[in-house]
Amino acid sequence: MRDAGSPMPGADAPAPVAGPLSPDELNALVRRQFPDYAACRVTDASGTHLLMEADGARLRTRPGGTISGPEQAGLVDLAAFLLINARLGRPTPMALTTSLQISYLNRPRPGLLRTHARMAKFGRRLCVVLAELRDEAGDLAASATVTYSVPPAAAGPGTG
Amino acid sequence: MRDAGSPMPGADAPAPVAGPLSPDELNALVRRQFPDYAACRVTDASGTHLLMEADGARLRTRPGGTISGPEQAGLVDLAAFLLINARLGRPTPMALTTSLQISYLNRPRPGLLRTHARMAKFGRRLCVVLAELRDEAGDLAASATVTYSVPPAAAGPGTG
Amino acid sequence: MRDAGSPMPGADAPAPVAGPLSPDELNALVRRQFPDYAACRVTDASGTHLLMEADGARLRTRPGGTISGPEQAGLVDLAAFLLINARLGRPTPMALTTSLQISYLNRPRPGLLRTHARMAKFGRRLCVVLAELRDEAGDLAASATVTYSVPPAAAGPGTG
Amino acid sequence: MRDAGSPMPGADAPAPVAGPLSPDELNALVRRQFPDYAACRVTDASGTHLLMEADGARLRTRPGGTISGPEQAGLVDLAAFLLINARLGRPTPMALTTSLQISYLNRPRPGLLRTHARMAKFGRRLCVVLAELRDEAGDLAASATVTYSVPPAAAGPGTG
Repeated sequence: MRDAGSPMPGADAPAPVAGPLSPDELNALVRRQFPDYAACRVTDASGTHLLMEADGARLRTRPGGTISGPEQAGLVDLAAFLLINARLGRPTPMALTTSLQISYLNRPRPGLLRTHARMAKFGRRLCVVLAELRDEAGDLAASATVTYSVPPAAAGPGTG
Repeated sequence: MRDAGSPMPGADAPAPVAGPLSPDELNALVRRQFPDYAACRVTDASGTHLLMEADGARLRTRPGGTISGPEQAGLVDLAAFLLINARLGRPTPMALTTSLQISYLNRPRPGLLRTHARMAKFGRRLCVVLAELRDEAGDLAASATVTYSVPPAAAGPGTG
Repeated sequence: MRDAGSPMPGADAPAPVAGPLSPDELNALVRRQFPDYAACRVTDASGTHLLMEADGARLRTRPGGTISGPEQAGLVDLAAFLLINARLGRPTPMALTTSLQISYLNRPRPGLLRTHARMAKFGRRLCVVLAELRDEAGDLAASATVTYSVPPAAAGPGTG
Repeated sequence: MRDAGSPMPGADAPAPVAGPLSPDELNALVRRQFPDYAACRVTDASGTHLLMEADGARLRTRPGGTISGPEQAGLVDLAAFLLINARLGRPTPMALTTSLQISYLNRPRPGLLRTHARMAKFGRRLCVVLAELRDEAGDLAASATVTYSVPPAAAGPGTG
């Protein structure tokens, strides 16, 4: 499908990439660039999907141990960034969030939080990632749409 | 799961309902209340999911035959309304959209458009529906989050 | 301010533009390209703000005469498109909505609806427009954020 | 206007309130309940508007000293919470964010960040707050829409 195709080399494109970054490479990126998110660990990644776990005990909480709303927003933003980096095949710090929409559905129980991100659009200039956040019991805590702009040279030809 | 449980009778709840409205009942509701959306037809519905098809030739288009953006917003809004009505088990005109967020991903090809709506939260006061719009080729045209408020008596006890 | 500056000629820029389109020029554009929105009339426009009136009696309504939610979304989308065209100084059909978020605040009374749009960001690739919709009594009916992508050649150098 | 009226006592309403909380009362609330936001200080508050300053040096930053996106989301979420508390006339921890939409417009310069929040809707169940974030030079860094649900008894009769 158009919205899940691999980046193809072309006029504006960089040299062909070897493939998506691995979870290990993405976790190394988090350790280097996002020390605030040391609680997070990517467990699975492809060019279209990413799973990330976070130890809730190491995140900002509210009374009762639930993870704060902005911290949940931070998790989906990070997962989207990592998915885009995975797809681009290399660290791309110039991928920047342009907008984030998050709906808080149920307060997550204390404990592990899992973020599942999937690529809804991978364009030459804009990427749209849909993400869901679930607590350890599997209940949906939040749903989010994150839009990133990517430098034109980074993405190669795409659909938008 | 908390976000997909059946409505249960309780203190604020109406009499127990027989079950979700059927596609036929929902289509009759569209014909009565939404004559602007005569192009739409529900093909599948449960308390948590709904599929709706629309004949693009009968919707507002832009040059080239693609469906206009606001018309796409109208489709996801309608699908969300119908899913909530299905879940409530009866027509509930006082279910009102409180917010709608839509990301346009790829311009849909002319022809049939399919909207897939799923219930992310069914609360006593607020419902959140996630929807995707695909063209006849199956390509993702848009992704949306729609929030509805429902009258307290309609929903029965829920999670928020 | 950076977010309200005039487009300046530069490396990627088109020839210098004469200035924003006038309300008359924008209304001619609506008549040519958006026959569905014949009820709308721009009454004021600059490079950063735009006012548009719509005759509610000629829009899609709901029982009671209130304007339908998707029709309200259509008004803010159109106002954003026209503001961006005004700023660019010429009709730019390739300006495309990438996302729209609208909060419905109060059901508008039947009658005239006024949309006020202002440019929050005018970048090389992305424009963000904030819009408010008020009914004839001046009550706030809806508030919206609309993001457009503009073709790189159209906008000239900007901030993003 | 309906969207900016004072809460009036009525059937569902608590005892009449003395008036909005003062900046001093709101700052005391932040110190007690939001130690993560010790960098924030309310400088002005009414029932419809609130201004809050944050010392960027004490917030989560990205390389170059710019404030991280999720931290900006946290500021607008906090400002919305405080504005709603101010309007209600007393601390209301059960006011919960139901959704947050933020558009990142320009990376803020290091230094002071100012959040300006205004009440777009103050309903019996839902409140919608619009917020803008500006850096020390006055440039618009972000624009946001935050929706809160408030306990029915807290808000008194309203518009929705």
